[in-house]
Amino acid sequence: MAREFNDVAATLQSIRYNRGSLQLLDQRKLPLETTYLEIRDSTDGWNAIRDMVVRGAPAIAIAAALSLAVEVFNLDGFNGSAGEAVSFLQNKLEYLVSSRPTAVNLSDAAGKLKEVVSTAAATTSEGRTVFQAFIEAAEVMLEDDVASNRAIGSYGASCIQQQTEKKKLSVLTHCNTGSLATAGYGTALGVIRALHSAKVLERAYCTETRPFNQGSRLTAYELVHEKIPATLIADSAAAALMKAGSVDAVVVGADRVASNGDTANKIGTYSVALSAKFHNVPFYVAAPLTSIDLSLSSGQEIVIEERSPKELLNARGGLGEQVAASGISVWNPAFDVTPANLISGIITEKGVITKTSDDAFDIKAFVQKTG
Amino acid sequence: MAREFNDVAATLQSIRYNRGSLQLLDQRKLPLETTYLEIRDSTDGWNAIRDMVVRGAPAIAIAAALSLAVEVFNLDGFNGSAGEAVSFLQNKLEYLVSSRPTAVNLSDAAGKLKEVVSTAAATTSEGRTVFQAFIEAAEVMLEDDVASNRAIGSYGASCIQQQTEKKKLSVLTHCNTGSLATAGYGTALGVIRALHSAKVLERAYCTETRPFNQGSRLTAYELVHEKIPATLIADSAAAALMKAGSVDAVVVGADRVASNGDTANKIGTYSVALSAKFHNVPFYVAAPLTSIDLSLSSGQEIVIEERSPKELLNARGGLGEQVAASGISVWNPAFDVTPANLISGIITEKGVITKTSDDAFDIKAFVQKTG
Repeated sequence: MAREFNDVAATLQSIRYNRGSLQLLDQRKLPLETTYLEIRDSTDGWNAIRDMVVRGAPAIAIAAALSLAVEVFNLDGFNGSAGEAVSFLQNKLEYLVSSRPTAVNLSDAAGKLKEVVSTAAATTSEGRTVFQAFIEAAEVMLEDDVASNRAIGSYGASCIQQQTEKKKLSVLTHCNTGSLATAGYGTALGVIRALHSAKVLERAYCTETRPFNQGSRLTAYELVHEKIPATLIADSAAAALMKAGSVDAVVVGADRVASNGDTANKIGTYSVALSAKFHNVPFYVAAPLTSIDLSLSSGQEIVIEERSPKELLNARGGLGEQVAASGISVWNPAFDVTPANLISGIITEKGVITKTSDDAFDIKAFVQKTG
Repeated sequence: MAREFNDVAATLQSIRYNRGSLQLLDQRKLPLETTYLEIRDSTDGWNAIRDMVVRGAPAIAIAAALSLAVEVFNLDGFNGSAGEAVSFLQNKLEYLVSSRPTAVNLSDAAGKLKEVVSTAAATTSEGRTVFQAFIEAAEVMLEDDVASNRAIGSYGASCIQQQTEKKKLSVLTHCNTGSLATAGYGTALGVIRALHSAKVLERAYCTETRPFNQGSRLTAYELVHEKIPATLIADSAAAALMKAGSVDAVVVGADRVASNGDTANKIGTYSVALSAKFHNVPFYVAAPLTSIDLSLSSGQEIVIEERSPKELLNARGGLGEQVAASGISVWNPAFDVTPANLISGIITEKGVITKTSDDAFDIKAFVQKTG
């Protein structure tokens, strides 16, 4: 019988999966249309990733794995050997990685799944048994990501509540870190969901997140969808909002966290962190442990990608009509680095990393203790 | 003979005037099209102001006055008395004020011009002599605004150069304070023009200035038009740009300055000021003395207007396609207040107001000394 993943159903699903069936929310049409695309096999999965139907590092990796899981589940005519199944799956995984060659999560996930497949083939001669092992491993990835996000939400909500005597809290977030960027629930937006579930959320504030508008398009969409009281602001209004006393905490996601706690995240995060520091508003990073890169000693080692000037020159992230003056130069960094000294805590699925007595994070110790 | 205003011709002109002839740059079509509208009389002027062909408080007042100056200059059939001329002009001035009833500069200017007209009528019986006095007074308004802005530019450029040993400086500005918002040259953008003329400007950085995009549409247009080396950034990238060491000074305009130096200006100014403070980048306000309101003891007395949610929900300042999620609430303040402690100096046409030994501005003393 097909397994159902009802625990995710309470929140917006970018990935709808039951064994043998996969649908992806078409994020290209958000926020105007909510439509799901049927994904029947790895070719559909490859196209969906390449065409940005699905985005966000964890979501891409899981969508790829599940597209192949659906394909092999429905491969009725297959009666091959374990070796043939291994070869089939490994070729398809290589193919899926080629949909977004620079996505580290995607190639990491493909690597792990290849190992699962090889291991399974060592104990059976049946191709279908190898398929079964693959399907289960892909499903575990989906479940684990959601479970990890729920843990982040729970730890984050407790931590933020402990910092204040207020009964209702307003929280500001930047960019999109919700169900649309993960397998479900979200990281920073997961913390906001958890506060809302606990009935202690007064209001969520989301920034537009220029220039790609992940906030006004995606986060606002998720918040409206789930009836969480929420207000959209221009990125530049965050400081004025804090000055007005309307923000009790900031929670953002992370692209990468260095071993000292310096955090690379969507451009504008650093600016929000500076405003939070100035107004004594606690500033949290919410991210799974996989986002922590202990090989980086500090944020200075993080290279910041620059994106297309078109994102500022034209509407709709560069696809729409021209809005800026012809001939103007543009600086469009994708990320900025928020130094650890502006960060109050790093919320992970294993707990919140807080600062030691010397006002620094000891992330290595935390990882070793919880690992 | 018609007087020419060649001193303005070196920079972009939103107002093209020679005695008897007025053209306004149609700012509704910027940055895509540069077209001028012929303004033949006060009716044309009224429509241009109402329809946002011209914007910016000083520019509106001057465009209104000049539209009427052009009308009476070309009124060949008029042979009326001084009293008839006064009545004609005062009625037309009332009518022009009704194009934008809340614009304080416009009604102030109309008040001053009414006095000029009454005074002129006291010494002549000729209607045409009264017209002549009106025309000259309107032209003086144009000349004075440009002269005032040039003085701001000159004082600002000297002041900023004195703060550093660098030979070339990069300056960041927010919103539009240039030829498109004034009679010509501009205030904060006038300081940048002056630095460029003095060959000490490395680069100007302009923010998009969400949500109405005055930076990407208008400031970027002016900078490209005058071949000033310039780069557009998202508002949220200002802090990262300063961290990278790319900004030597910030110069912004002002909607209103309170007597302690607290400054209300376009939303996002406060955020830029916080980042500048954190990175030890000097932060200047450039504004004519008419923007200083000594009746306000501090910025707390300034009421912040909220603007339409549509500016964030739809493209092109609310006129274009939907970009944000349906149903999301919006907080869209037009301005924020930057406290005096974040401001290094206030650049006026009479000199730069700096802080006294107790780290406060004594604006009253400056105004009395220079007035």
